[in-house]
Amino acid sequence: MPNPTAAMLVIGDEILSGRTRDANMYHLAGELARHGIDLAEVRIVSDRREAIVAAVNDLRATYDHLFTCGGIGPTHDDITADAIAAAFGLALHIRADARDILAAHYARSGLELNAARLRMARIPGDAVLIDNPLSSAPGFSLGNVHVMAGVPDIFAAMVAGLLPRLTGGTPLLSQTLRILRGEGEIAGPLAELAADYAALAIGSYPFVKDGVYGANIVIRGQDKALVDQAMTRLARLFPDSQL
Amino acid sequence: MPNPTAAMLVIGDEILSGRTRDANMYHLAGELARHGIDLAEVRIVSDRREAIVAAVNDLRATYDHLFTCGGIGPTHDDITADAIAAAFGLALHIRADARDILAAHYARSGLELNAARLRMARIPGDAVLIDNPLSSAPGFSLGNVHVMAGVPDIFAAMVAGLLPRLTGGTPLLSQTLRILRGEGEIAGPLAELAADYAALAIGSYPFVKDGVYGANIVIRGQDKALVDQAMTRLARLFPDSQL
Repeated sequence: MPNPTAAMLVIGDEILSGRTRDANMYHLAGELARHGIDLAEVRIVSDRREAIVAAVNDLRATYDHLFTCGGIGPTHDDITADAIAAAFGLALHIRADARDILAAHYARSGLELNAARLRMARIPGDAVLIDNPLSSAPGFSLGNVHVMAGVPDIFAAMVAGLLPRLTGGTPLLSQTLRILRGEGEIAGPLAELAADYAALAIGSYPFVKDGVYGANIVIRGQDKALVDQAMTRLARLFPDSQL
Repeated sequence: MPNPTAAMLVIGDEILSGRTRDANMYHLAGELARHGIDLAEVRIVSDRREAIVAAVNDLRATYDHLFTCGGIGPTHDDITADAIAAAFGLALHIRADARDILAAHYARSGLELNAARLRMARIPGDAVLIDNPLSSAPGFSLGNVHVMAGVPDIFAAMVAGLLPRLTGGTPLLSQTLRILRGEGEIAGPLAELAADYAALAIGSYPFVKDGVYGANIVIRGQDKALVDQAMTRLARLFPDSQL
């Protein structure tokens, strides 16, 4: 059975404006590979409601899962819950279970559960809450859309809580051979290898370091014996140029 | 006149599989902001021809510019030029000007211009070449689609050569105030400020550091006087909690 497929939607101007370098994409991609869910596409859109709604409806229809990050805090630019509700044609109200979680958290902290913070208890429909062990305000899963926070520590904690709930597949295994030769030298034999192992994904990622050309050849697949076999053949093809 | 808009398409399994952390997106986003081109969306797709063609045709129709990175090297998994040609309904042949550039480069290096390397001289239609001062194999601009390499140093060099050719707009200015208070405390006044300065984008980016909650409030806009004015008002709102 093929692995479930997934897309990720990153919501926020901070990456598009060049202010912030992504961390969540990198984290989720690794976690999904280990869990056997194939991440097939990522989109980053700005904090505009129409852009979020369009991307959510496109991606949730195309993939088995959609993971979003960003835009579920208490400030005016946090519009993800509104956009998700709109995408599903649902109303967005404060839900008692989410409010209780926030009330308990702020009571412990001695802080007021004011109107801004109560916005974080707005959960659409019968969405299942995603636990936030750091700052309590929950994410949620609505159908196949999993809505999480953008702060990297909180995002990672939510992913850790969510993934065990999702049926995974076979983890994607990956082996890398670093070859100190230009891609143009290795392309021919590499293409033959790739043709012989059509069930594997063989990628070549070139680099230039201190004026020296090289490439990391990555062999990915679900069948460990097959990955090992292809890697053995690859290593024999270029015995003198490996790092 | 509003700034030109842009999207970026990152092509490559290495980011989706969690192997590589993006660098090109972060670089391009910053360069475009300085050049006055508004980056509105980024997509990352895998090395599958149909996925690339669909994304290219969607994004080039939606935005003034589309910048792609990745997949233009000599190996079997470099299929971007093929996909771009297919998206435009063009054939893909070796073009003399590109072949001459490669021939001169490999002659200087004492390396053979073999079949794999010649693949990098395949340029669709009347595309304008994008200079590659590092390893010579050119990128190209076809209509509003700018096709560049994925190796970060080469990508950055291509962007530096390309951007002066593109009409920019007003650079996006940005000022940040770091506030050591939870977002829930500042959300109310911040929403009022955002409503009063509708021409600016005011974003709140929360963080948790050593158990302390804070937020970076970023004010972005094209009018320096207006950004200054809003920032002055913001700083007066939270005089005691700035870092």
